[in-house]
Amino acid sequence: MIRIGIDIGGTGIQVGVVTESFSIIREESIPTRKDLPFEEQVRLIAECVVSATEASGHSVDDIESVGVGIPGIASFSTGEIIKCTNMGWNHVPFREVFQSFLNKPVFIDNDANVAALAESVAGVSAGSSSSVFITIGTGIGSGIILNGRIWSGAHHIGGELGHVIFDLDGVPCSCGNHGCLERYCSATALIRMAREAVEDHPESQLLSLAGQDPMRIEAKTVFDAMKSGDPVAQSVFRRYISCLSQAVASVENLLDPEIIVLGGGVSKAGKALLDPLLDEYPQYVLFNDQPLPPVKLAVLGPEAGIIGAAMLS
Amino acid sequence: MIRIGIDIGGTGIQVGVVTESFSIIREESIPTRKDLPFEEQVRLIAECVVSATEASGHSVDDIESVGVGIPGIASFSTGEIIKCTNMGWNHVPFREVFQSFLNKPVFIDNDANVAALAESVAGVSAGSSSSVFITIGTGIGSGIILNGRIWSGAHHIGGELGHVIFDLDGVPCSCGNHGCLERYCSATALIRMAREAVEDHPESQLLSLAGQDPMRIEAKTVFDAMKSGDPVAQSVFRRYISCLSQAVASVENLLDPEIIVLGGGVSKAGKALLDPLLDEYPQYVLFNDQPLPPVKLAVLGPEAGIIGAAMLS
Repeated sequence: MIRIGIDIGGTGIQVGVVTESFSIIREESIPTRKDLPFEEQVRLIAECVVSATEASGHSVDDIESVGVGIPGIASFSTGEIIKCTNMGWNHVPFREVFQSFLNKPVFIDNDANVAALAESVAGVSAGSSSSVFITIGTGIGSGIILNGRIWSGAHHIGGELGHVIFDLDGVPCSCGNHGCLERYCSATALIRMAREAVEDHPESQLLSLAGQDPMRIEAKTVFDAMKSGDPVAQSVFRRYISCLSQAVASVENLLDPEIIVLGGGVSKAGKALLDPLLDEYPQYVLFNDQPLPPVKLAVLGPEAGIIGAAMLS
Repeated sequence: MIRIGIDIGGTGIQVGVVTESFSIIREESIPTRKDLPFEEQVRLIAECVVSATEASGHSVDDIESVGVGIPGIASFSTGEIIKCTNMGWNHVPFREVFQSFLNKPVFIDNDANVAALAESVAGVSAGSSSSVFITIGTGIGSGIILNGRIWSGAHHIGGELGHVIFDLDGVPCSCGNHGCLERYCSATALIRMAREAVEDHPESQLLSLAGQDPMRIEAKTVFDAMKSGDPVAQSVFRRYISCLSQAVASVENLLDPEIIVLGGGVSKAGKALLDPLLDEYPQYVLFNDQPLPPVKLAVLGPEAGIIGAAMLS
């Protein structure tokens, strides 16, 4: 038997054929076509599933289930996609329509939740029964796994660690509030801190590495400048690590999972990110004389979306 | 059959005999005796259980289980109390010792978790499968119920909402960190805000109601001054409600339970607390165009400790 994992994104839709040992044996993609009616979009996805399945050497009879990860919210029980802004979907009966083209069990969940599940089944947190996965990218996404299953809340809108208040009356957030956690812990936050720092320190390598244009400073610029010993970059990074440590400790104080996993663009910094974080985060944990969860880097990369979706059940 | 619920506190230990319909039919208490050896303390508790059981008209054969709520952390699986500072207990084998005196199934959990369970079984959140219970007192305690069971974490140290970072680099907390949520949302926080306000506004009724002594301002003083129209008290309270609303919304954004329950001293303010909170909290929820959990006041009061402990299983 095979499982299908579908990763729906704003520009493309990836369809993967996944084995019982979590290998993707065939992957196909179609462009996102927001201009088409919803039923037509779903028909194209179902066709891509059939095409990928057959190209993998299987038949549709071999499909055990179809899982879908979306950048939005969905009802796991009804199969309705409640909201998926990138796709222009609002309260669309995805499972029902999909099954009219291909009658298989269909499961839908948020993409951060799906990535969390992938890591907890086939990635760095495999074998754990509870984990919190934090994606550090433009924003902060998160997925909570408890007792081996995704916890997305009673109304499917939980897992939004990025919008927990972290700095009362702090930096304005795109969501309309102030001081959301992602304003301090995302790649965007690291970049903001670096751009602010070069205003007072134009001599910093942060600026020379960015061709003297603060707007060209990226997260990688900070890591590069730091590696070459730039004190301004080091100071920016220490502040960023302090914020991220307090965020990780907050997750621990509230949820105390078996393991905390970091993914997303910033996690590619590897040990440069992880080592100082592991040093610092316990100081903010209330019961830090007790065993604490390890913090590890995600290992699955972009495949997590397909693998995790395929593992939904 | 009956169940025993034990509420262990720093000054007294309450033992209750609880029916299957969650009524306490007999309650006895003994003073906390930190001066005695641990085994002796447990023996006195076991004797109190036997005494309360017999006084209730039952025999020890009728006891289905014994549940214990402690102001500390315990391993539900091993029956060890890991830490209970008030009692001076560190890594004590409570279940094992208790069973040497009275051989019944013994379950132990943190007192905030136990109160959360009580409300979710026999109180305001009865019938829900997920809830977050927030106790607003000197500090902020919390208990998380997911899929009908207490979630206290993989290392038994979760549920500490009070020590989630809420205001980066903010007010120092007794735990050693800065900006913990309880510094902004507890009764202590409300009192601090009021005391700060009267420094600039000595004309406020906050001060006259406290006999002109800022140190005599209590949480109730703020509610009393507010009721008589004092604008300084109203302003302090608005700020407090804004903080508490952001805390409640943060819980919702991360955990999205079916219901959020408020208990503890400040919750006795009733509608004066709840109505403005219900008005304000949705604005901080990311997906606030979706159905949101109701926020309700705890109904069980101090009995929650015994009832919840008795419901542990």
